[in-house]
Amino acid sequence: MSSFGWSWQLEWQSPCEFHAHLINRVIVDLKTEFQRIMVVEFATYGKALIIDGKIQSSVADEFIYHETLVHPLLLSIENPKNVLILGGGEGATLREVLKNNLVEKATMVDIDKAVIDFAKQYLTEWHQGSFDNKRANIVISDAKKFIDNTTESYDAIVLDLTDPIKGNTSYKLYTKEFYEEIKHHLNKGGAIVTQATSPSFSLDVFSTIMNTLRNTFKLVSASIVYVPSFDGLWGFVYASDYVNPIVLTRDQIDKKIKERIVGELRFYDGETHNTIFNIPKHIRKVIQQETRISTENNPIYVPA
Amino acid sequence: MSSFGWSWQLEWQSPCEFHAHLINRVIVDLKTEFQRIMVVEFATYGKALIIDGKIQSSVADEFIYHETLVHPLLLSIENPKNVLILGGGEGATLREVLKNNLVEKATMVDIDKAVIDFAKQYLTEWHQGSFDNKRANIVISDAKKFIDNTTESYDAIVLDLTDPIKGNTSYKLYTKEFYEEIKHHLNKGGAIVTQATSPSFSLDVFSTIMNTLRNTFKLVSASIVYVPSFDGLWGFVYASDYVNPIVLTRDQIDKKIKERIVGELRFYDGETHNTIFNIPKHIRKVIQQETRISTENNPIYVPA
Amino acid sequence: MSSFGWSWQLEWQSPCEFHAHLINRVIVDLKTEFQRIMVVEFATYGKALIIDGKIQSSVADEFIYHETLVHPLLLSIENPKNVLILGGGEGATLREVLKNNLVEKATMVDIDKAVIDFAKQYLTEWHQGSFDNKRANIVISDAKKFIDNTTESYDAIVLDLTDPIKGNTSYKLYTKEFYEEIKHHLNKGGAIVTQATSPSFSLDVFSTIMNTLRNTFKLVSASIVYVPSFDGLWGFVYASDYVNPIVLTRDQIDKKIKERIVGELRFYDGETHNTIFNIPKHIRKVIQQETRISTENNPIYVPA
Amino acid sequence: MSSFGWSWQLEWQSPCEFHAHLINRVIVDLKTEFQRIMVVEFATYGKALIIDGKIQSSVADEFIYHETLVHPLLLSIENPKNVLILGGGEGATLREVLKNNLVEKATMVDIDKAVIDFAKQYLTEWHQGSFDNKRANIVISDAKKFIDNTTESYDAIVLDLTDPIKGNTSYKLYTKEFYEEIKHHLNKGGAIVTQATSPSFSLDVFSTIMNTLRNTFKLVSASIVYVPSFDGLWGFVYASDYVNPIVLTRDQIDKKIKERIVGELRFYDGETHNTIFNIPKHIRKVIQQETRISTENNPIYVPA
Repeated sequence: MSSFGWSWQLEWQSPCEFHAHLINRVIVDLKTEFQRIMVVEFATYGKALIIDGKIQSSVADEFIYHETLVHPLLLSIENPKNVLILGGGEGATLREVLKNNLVEKATMVDIDKAVIDFAKQYLTEWHQGSFDNKRANIVISDAKKFIDNTTESYDAIVLDLTDPIKGNTSYKLYTKEFYEEIKHHLNKGGAIVTQATSPSFSLDVFSTIMNTLRNTFKLVSASIVYVPSFDGLWGFVYASDYVNPIVLTRDQIDKKIKERIVGELRFYDGETHNTIFNIPKHIRKVIQQETRISTENNPIYVPA
Repeated sequence: MSSFGWSWQLEWQSPCEFHAHLINRVIVDLKTEFQRIMVVEFATYGKALIIDGKIQSSVADEFIYHETLVHPLLLSIENPKNVLILGGGEGATLREVLKNNLVEKATMVDIDKAVIDFAKQYLTEWHQGSFDNKRANIVISDAKKFIDNTTESYDAIVLDLTDPIKGNTSYKLYTKEFYEEIKHHLNKGGAIVTQATSPSFSLDVFSTIMNTLRNTFKLVSASIVYVPSFDGLWGFVYASDYVNPIVLTRDQIDKKIKERIVGELRFYDGETHNTIFNIPKHIRKVIQQETRISTENNPIYVPA
Repeated sequence: MSSFGWSWQLEWQSPCEFHAHLINRVIVDLKTEFQRIMVVEFATYGKALIIDGKIQSSVADEFIYHETLVHPLLLSIENPKNVLILGGGEGATLREVLKNNLVEKATMVDIDKAVIDFAKQYLTEWHQGSFDNKRANIVISDAKKFIDNTTESYDAIVLDLTDPIKGNTSYKLYTKEFYEEIKHHLNKGGAIVTQATSPSFSLDVFSTIMNTLRNTFKLVSASIVYVPSFDGLWGFVYASDYVNPIVLTRDQIDKKIKERIVGELRFYDGETHNTIFNIPKHIRKVIQQETRISTENNPIYVPA
Repeated sequence: MSSFGWSWQLEWQSPCEFHAHLINRVIVDLKTEFQRIMVVEFATYGKALIIDGKIQSSVADEFIYHETLVHPLLLSIENPKNVLILGGGEGATLREVLKNNLVEKATMVDIDKAVIDFAKQYLTEWHQGSFDNKRANIVISDAKKFIDNTTESYDAIVLDLTDPIKGNTSYKLYTKEFYEEIKHHLNKGGAIVTQATSPSFSLDVFSTIMNTLRNTFKLVSASIVYVPSFDGLWGFVYASDYVNPIVLTRDQIDKKIKERIVGELRFYDGETHNTIFNIPKHIRKVIQQETRISTENNPIYVPA
C-alpha cells in the first residue's frame, strides 16, 4: 500500500485517554497458561515487557520502579537478612534486593513458571543473572497459597504484584485480610512494601491501598515516582510497626547506600529520597482524606 | 499498569489520515537483506503479511486482489501457455495463475529469496503449495535484470510489484521504458497486467500508470476493487496490442471460468467483471484527462 | 508543550478498527435537543458534517452518496411528480431530488428543526438553497408519526435516515412493519429507496435490510458505492412492485439524465450505474443467502 | 456511519510517541494574526487551551504549572514590589503574582492582543478577573522589543513564554544574550524564573536552559513537576545574583505563604517545595553534565 505505517502499542488509561508508542521490533509474542506476554523493542524506550497488552517495564526506565520498590524499604530495616518477594517475575526486583549486602536469602514467589523461564531467556537486562545467585530461592506458587502454607518469617516482604483487577485474583493481595496475614510472617523490626498502582491513572486505588495499610500497621509512608514509559506517576507504600523510610535524612540514605549497596544505583539516593517521599499538596490531600479500606468483601480495583 | 492496551497496526495514507487495526498476535517479525517482514494475526482480517510497515494482504481478502490481478488477463488471452510473474513473493499470484488450466509454465521472478522462504514457512494460506507445482518455475532475481537478460517470450506477463517509491528501484518498473522492454517479450496475442496502486490514496499514480500504458500499447483498460484491509480502493491496468478484457461480456466470462478455471473463484465472475471494469464517473474523468507519462527521467511515485 | 499535535476525528468501525482524520478547523460544535452536531474542516475532505461523533458527509464526496440515493430511483419511475424524503437534514438529498425536472413537489420530513436551521446556516454547499425552492415542502416531524398521520401518497419515497441503532428509534424505520406502512403511501408505478448502512462495516445489516424489502416488495435491487471519507463501502436498496433501476441499460440511463436532470451529475451516469448495481461475488453471496427479516420484535441494529 | 467516533486531541512528543485525549466539546477554534487558538472541553481534564495544536493548560491542573512558576520566585525575594511577566496570555500567571500581597505592580507583556481578548472572554477560570486588577498593567508588545526599550527595572521577572521553536522568534528569549539583557532590568535583590520545557520530552533543552542561566547568574536552581494533561514532567529554572528559592526550608515556605499569600494555594507548600526542588539522580546527572549554552548564533530548540 502507498501508506506509511508501523506497529504501535496503544494503551488506554481510560476510555478518554490513550498513549501510543512506536514498536521497532516484536521480539516474542506468546500465550502462557495465565497471560499473553510480549517482548518488543520500542523506538523510544528500547526493549520492553508487555503482559496482557500492558507495558510492564522497559530497559530505559525499569530501574526507577525497581530501585524505588526495594531500597527505601531495605535501607530502613536494621538487618534485612531474610527477604520475601511476591511476584516480580522479570527478576529485576530480585536483582535490586540482592544488591543489598545484608541480604542473606531472597525468596521469590511467582505464580507463572513460564514467565520466569521467559525472563531467563528474553529479559537478561532485567534479572542480570539474579535467578542463579546462590542467595536466591525461586518458588513457583500462587502468592496467597504460599503465605497460607509457609511457616517461615521474614525481615522484609516486597509485594511486586500485578494491579488489583476485577476478575483475576490479584485484588486479594491488596486487602486488609492479606496484609494482616503477611504481618504475621514479619520478624521484629521487619517491614513490607507494595507497588500501589498509578496516582495519575487510579489515584483512588493508590490512596485506598495506603489507607488500608494505615489501618494494619503503625508506621506507613508512600513514595511517588514518574515513569516515562508509563507516561505517568507510579506509587509505592511502605508499612511496618517498627521502621519508616520517610524519617531517613538525605545524608543517612547516602551513607547507608555506601555501606550496603554493591554496585551503583541509577535513580535512588539521598536527594531522590526527598523528591519521592514528599508528596505534592493536591495528592497528599486525597491520601489524607481517604477513608476506604480494601477488604475481600469490598475490594478496590483498577479500571479494567 | 492499570491501563487497557494492545498492539495495533497504524497506517498513514497521508500526514492527515491513518487507519488502525488491532493485532491479536505477532507470528513473526524479521529483517531480510531488503526489507522488514511481519506476519500478524489481525482481530478483524486474520493472518496478514506486513512489509516495511505496510499491509500487503490478509487471508480475509487477498483473494480480491489476486483474482483481479490474474484472471481478467488470462481469460482474455486465447492461449496463455507461458506466463511470467514479476514479484508476487507470497505465492498467491502464482496460485491464481496455476488455476488456469491452459497455463503450461508459470515463471515467477522475485528479488528476495528470504521472502519466498518466508512465504513457504508462514504463508501457506497464500501459496497453497504452488511453489512446488511442477508447472511453476521460481527465479530469484531483480525483475529488471531478469528482463534485460532473458531471451524467452511470454503469452502473459503479470506485474505484481511493490508500489513505485522514491529511493527504492521499484519505480523503474512503472515507466514507459520498462513497458517498452517487456512488450518485446510478449508473444503474438499476448498481454500484460500491473497492479496500479490505490485510486483512493494515490489517484494520480493510478491514472499516470494507465496513461503510460496507453502510450505503449494499443488496447488498455483498468479495473478497480475495494479491499477491506486496505480501507480503500485498489487499481489494476491491463495492456496489449491484441486483446482487452473489458470487451468480454458477463456470459463470456462465466463460460470461460467454467472451461478454464480449476477450483472456485471467490471474487471474480461475470457480474463482478462488470462492477470492476466500469469506472465511476469522477475517477473516469481523472483517468481520461491524465496526460502525464512515467519515464525514468520523470517517474511517478507514491507518497513515501 | 514541545509536542506537535492537532485535533483529529477518530472513528471506530469496531473495537478492533478505527480511522483517523486530521481536523484543520472546527467551524461549529453544538448540542441540539436530539444530538451533538459539528461542522469541521478536514485536511483531506474539506468541510464535513459530524453528528454524534460520526462523519455524515463531506463536501469532497457527499455527491457520491446523494446522487446514488436519489437518481437511480427517480430515473426508474415513469413520472415521479410527488416525492417524499424522510430524513436528509443537510438538504443534499432534497437538492438532488429537485435536479429532476419531473418532480413537482418534494416533501422533506426531518425530526430535528435545529439540524435544518443549522444546515441553512452552515451547510450551504450541501443544500445550495434547496430549502427555499418553491417545489420544496419542509415538515418538522418524527418520520414515523408523519407516515402514521398523512393521507397523501407519493410516486417516490426516499429514506435518508440515520443508521438503525439500539436505543434510539431509527431502527423502527428499517422494519417490515414500516415498509408495509409506507408501501400504502406509494402511487401506482411508485418506488422507494433506503440507505442501507455499510457493506464494509455492517454487512449483515445491509443484507437484512435487502431481505426485509424483498419480503415486502416484488422488485428489489441494491447498489454499492465507495465513499472516501467513510473509508469504506456504502449500500442502498431500491424497492417497488412496478419498477427496478437495475434493468436500465447504460444508454437508457444516459438518455434519461439528458432529458430529466437539470445541471450536471458528478458521480452517476450509465457506466457508473453498471459499476454500482453489479455486486461483487462474495458480497452477492451473503445477500442471496440472507434469511433474516428486521421486525419491530426482532430488529436489526448496527454495532453501537 | 455505523461507527463510534469522536474528536480527539493527538499530541506527538516525537515521531515515535503520541498521546490522545477525548474532546467532549470544542468551545472555540480561531486563527489570530500569530497563531491558531482553541478552547476545548476534555473528557478528563475539562476546559483546556490549545495553541497551534498543543495543549497549553487545562482547568484541572493549570494550578500546578502556574503556582510553581510564580511562588518559589516571589517568596524567595525579600520585597517583590514590582513584577514583570513576559508572556502568560491566559492571565493565570498574573493571577498567581497578584496573590502575593507584597506585589504593588504587575506588568504583563504579551505579543498577541487577540490572545488576551480571547482569554478575557473564554478563560475566566484562568485569569479570574486579574486583567482588571488595579495592580495589573497589561502591555501589548513583543517581549524582546519591550525589554529593548523599557528603562524600568523590576524585583522579579517571570518568563512565561512559548517553547523555543525553530522558525518562530521565541527561541531568542532563551539565549544568554537575552538573559544578560533582562539581568540589567533587575533591582538589587531581584530574581527571574523561566518555564524550561519538559524534562520528559526535551531534557536537553531543559538542561541547556539551566546551564545557560548558570553562566549568566550566580545562583540558579530548578524545579520539576508532573502535569497530568501533558502526560509528563515540566521544568522551571530560577536565577538570581542574590536569592535562591532552593535554600528555603519547608517551615520557612509555609510561614511565608501564611504571611504573603492572599487566598489558598492548591499545589505549592513546604512539603511540595521539597518534592519539586529535589531532582531525581538520573535527571540531576544530565543537568550537572550539561555544557551547552543557548546563544543567538547557536540556540537550542524543542523538536518542532
